[in-house]
Parts: sequence; structure tokens; C-alpha cells
Amino acid sequence: MAIPQAVKLVEVGPRDGLQNESAPVSTADKVNLIRDLVDAGVSYIEAGSFVNPRSVPQMADSDQVFAGLKSNPGLNLPSLTLAALTPNLKGFERAMQAGVTEVAVFASASEGFSAKNINCTIAESLARFQPLMQAALDQGVAVRGYISCVVGCPYDGEVTPQQVDLVSRALFDMGCYEVSLGDTIGVGTAGHFKRLLDYLLLHTSADKLAVHCHDTYGQALANICTSLEYGIATVDASVAGLGGCPYALNATGNVASEDVVYMLEGMGISTGIDLDRLIGVGQSISDLLGKPTNSNVGRARSTS
Amino acid sequence: MAIPQAVKLVEVGPRDGLQNESAPVSTADKVNLIRDLVDAGVSYIEAGSFVNPRSVPQMADSDQVFAGLKSNPGLNLPSLTLAALTPNLKGFERAMQAGVTEVAVFASASEGFSAKNINCTIAESLARFQPLMQAALDQGVAVRGYISCVVGCPYDGEVTPQQVDLVSRALFDMGCYEVSLGDTIGVGTAGHFKRLLDYLLLHTSADKLAVHCHDTYGQALANICTSLEYGIATVDASVAGLGGCPYALNATGNVASEDVVYMLEGMGISTGIDLDRLIGVGQSISDLLGKPTNSNVGRARSTS
Repeated sequence: MAIPQAVKLVEVGPRDGLQNESAPVSTADKVNLIRDLVDAGVSYIEAGSFVNPRSVPQMADSDQVFAGLKSNPGLNLPSLTLAALTPNLKGFERAMQAGVTEVAVFASASEGFSAKNINCTIAESLARFQPLMQAALDQGVAVRGYISCVVGCPYDGEVTPQQVDLVSRALFDMGCYEVSLGDTIGVGTAGHFKRLLDYLLLHTSADKLAVHCHDTYGQALANICTSLEYGIATVDASVAGLGGCPYALNATGNVASEDVVYMLEGMGISTGIDLDRLIGVGQSISDLLGKPTNSNVGRARSTS
Repeated sequence: MAIPQAVKLVEVGPRDGLQNESAPVSTADKVNLIRDLVDAGVSYIEAGSFVNPRSVPQMADSDQVFAGLKSNPGLNLPSLTLAALTPNLKGFERAMQAGVTEVAVFASASEGFSAKNINCTIAESLARFQPLMQAALDQGVAVRGYISCVVGCPYDGEVTPQQVDLVSRALFDMGCYEVSLGDTIGVGTAGHFKRLLDYLLLHTSADKLAVHCHDTYGQALANICTSLEYGIATVDASVAGLGGCPYALNATGNVASEDVVYMLEGMGISTGIDLDRLIGVGQSISDLLGKPTNSNVGRARSTS
């Protein structure tokens, strides 16, 4: 399998990242962050989520964020996707009212995480997506699928490739155009990703899969590197490593976009992203949050 | 090329690590650290260096460290190598008096680093090794070679595989049994290591090469993972990521041994090392130094 010549970076910092940061970020600052990411060349950004605002207060202003983005003439680029997470039909309808053009749904490969995180079984979560998927199909809205805990679960322990495959196939059968494989607690190694992709690629082509690696155990780039060798050409990442890790004290969560882009550049793989500007965006949002960046590249390049 | 089934971890924390830590560590604590590493299953440790004590005061007690190690009955294992860095014949003779059984020499792939770090040209540094190599040959002492700045240099910028190859071949010609490729400032990516190994392996077999990756840009594990695919089966690492990075503020230096062993375990590659015990050693030395560990795995597993 040839390593891809270009990779699409899916920037999840404004949603998956900020959702897990304790410091509040204003609507205007979220819009600025997203605009800065676009200015750095990022072409796919998960910009918000339409979940219950009581469950996730950090995302309660997603409709205003999208309103702010829509009113910004610099963000009306045909090559730009600004997506939102939608857990159910109600969330999907709110997203449509806010002018969102692409959405994502979120399932778990482990029952334990599904129960604790979204309070239902995996089967129930998939059933909940059905009316949403139908509405999206009717309205021509593309839906991305996330699977969490594709290697390990904080409650159930090890997760097998077979478990991931079942959920992945269900999401594709429902109409997801792509499934992002999330190592939510970052326990996976290159060996785990090889075994996972060896299995999934029996049924699925690499161009329909993305990887979403957390750097909790420092393994994210090695796992992404391994996934590239399987032809995976879509990589989720979070600027400045925004998001932390709720399952391991003091540890990092989402792999930093800067670190991914640095690696891809060194491998001669294009992303369309200006690394220096991306590092600047990571520094700005870290300063705003009043915390050091979780990007190794950001730290190495920092002069302060 | 098949990925190796077993990897030899060369633990450089007690030398390369502590040499770059500002906090002083007593001779007894150094001996304890090395004993704890051996207890965790580490079979090759760089335990000290016989350089000018005025240049590197942290290593001024290396003869006492080796005396302490020799008097410890638990460390007289036939499978254990306790090595020392020796810059010249004088250092080699001091090492022999201290009972060292294996030594290492250190050259740079870049003229700028050679000038600043060891105050001579690359050719002069190689010439300086000649009497040392002859003495080692006469006494049947194995010599390992290090090359620093194999990808980039803090003074000269980019370093080509051709430059590394010239120094590597000189070290082999002199009698080094192995050459460790050091990405001293951690700027290399998987792409750089591919290009480097593609070139070096035209002339050298993989079993004579080791990789010595720094995690400054977060790339170390991806680079090691890539090197494994070239058949490299010897990996340098530093427990708790001891050593920091003198060339980038706030950045990490040596890749942490815990992170390497965690990855290798996940890939089904044996090291003979007990990861839980190694994590404990990393925590203990970090506590002693009064600083947080630089191991991602150590942080993720930490409960405090």
C-alpha cells in the first residue's frame, strides 16, 4: 500500500478540544479561532456541536458560532467544510437551522463507554441515528461517523477489531461517508493500529476511514504513521492538543495538529496547511486559555 | 524487511540523561538508579563517562559509580553491559582503571556541532579516536560509536544522509561494532529516517545500526517505529526522558524508555524489560530530581 501523497487534516480543536477544556471561551473567540485556522490553510474544521447544553455547556453557543462564521465573508470558501456534531434528530434540526452543511455522529466500540458517555447501549445509539441519517439523506447533508474506544475503553479494557468492525459497518450501512477511528484514551500502539486496520480493511476501503489518535501515551504520531502505510489519508487532530484527557491525570489527549503537520511535511505529504501560521494559532489559543500548549512542535518552536 | 521480534534497549539515562540535568545527583543515587534499571530488566546501560570533569562536572564521579556497581553482587550478570563514554585515549585508560568493559565514542555528522560541542573538526575527532580504538582492540574491549545531528544541526541546519554515511563508515572502519544514529535536536520525522536508512543501508547492515531519537518535536516514536521497519533492532532511550533539550526551551530531549517499551510491547516486540517496574524507576528518579517525568506513559500511569 502506497503512503498517500496528500492528507486531509480534520481539525477538531474548536469542538472536541474546547469541549474538554475547563476555561470558558467566548463565542467571538471561537469564531476567531476557526477563522485563524482557515487562514492557516485548514480546510475541514469541526466547529461546534448541537448536543444538550446542560450536558456540554461549552458548546451551548454553537448556533451563534455558526452564525458568526456565516457572516464572515472570508469563510465562504467552496473548499472549506465547517461541520458540527449532532447526537440525534433534534440536534440535526438545530444544526440545519444554524446553517451547518455537514454533520457527524458519535458511537462507541465499547458498551462501557457508550453507557457512561451517552447513557445508552451501542445498539440504542445506532438506532437513535436512524431518523437523523434519513433526514440528512433527504436534505443531501453528508454525515461523518466517529467511533470511540477503538483500541481500549476506560471501563471495559481491551476492545477488539471485531467490535470496531461491527460498529463501523453499521455506520456505513446507515449512510456515513467516512468513519473516524478514535483511540479515545490513547492506549493504542502501532501494533494495535496494524491489527485494527488489517481487520477493517478486509471489508472497508482505506479512503473511507480516518484515524483520531490521542497522545496520552505518546503513541499518536507512530499510530498515524502506521495508518498512513495502510493508505489512510484523513487524520483528526486538535490545534495545541486542545482537549486534555479526562481519563488520565496530567496527560495529554488529542494529538496536536502542529505535530501531525510537522510529521507529514517531513514525509513529503501535503496538507495545504502553513505550519508556521498553525503554530501561531496554537500559541494564541493556549495564551487565551492561560495554559501551555500540548503541541511538542509548539513548545520546541516557542521562544518564551 | 521484517520488523525485529526483539529489541535491545540501550538505556542512556544515567549518562546522557543526567549529564544534561541541572540538579546534582549523588554517586549513591546514580548507583541506585542503575541497579533499579537492571532490576527492571534493562540489559545495556550507559553508566557514566570519562570526559574532562571541568567540562562535564555531572560525570566527574564516574569512577566511583563504576566502583559502586562492581561491588554490587546483583550487577555481576553475564547478560548485562555497563558502558561508559570515552572521548580519547586518556578517558579510555581511566575507564579501564575503573573496570569498564565496554566504551563508546562520539562524533558529529555536522561540522558546526563538532566545533561547538567537542571543539574540533569531524576529521580531528575521528583522528583522536584512533589511539583509543587501537587500545580497545588490544584489550578486547568493544566500542560503540555515536553520531550526533544525523538529521539536523542547531548550527548548520539540515544534515544529509551522505554526511552521516561518511562518519558512520569511518567509525566502522576504525572498529566500532555498532553505530548509533542520534537525532540530537529531534527535528527528524519518519520521512527523514526513511531517507537516512535508505541511504545507509546501501553500505551497512541494519544489525550494526541503532537509533537515538529525541522527542523534541514529538517525533521520536514514529521515527523508531519507522526504523524498526528497516530492521533496526537497537534503540537508545532515557528513563523518564532524562536529559531535557539544551537547544529548545521547555522541550523534551531523549525519548523516554517507558514510552519506547510501551510501544514495543504493543507491537509484540520483546525487550526483556518489565514496564511497570521501569515506570517506577522513572517516577523515582523524577522525584529525586524534583521535576515531572518526561515520559508520556509515566504521566498517563501516574496517579498523583
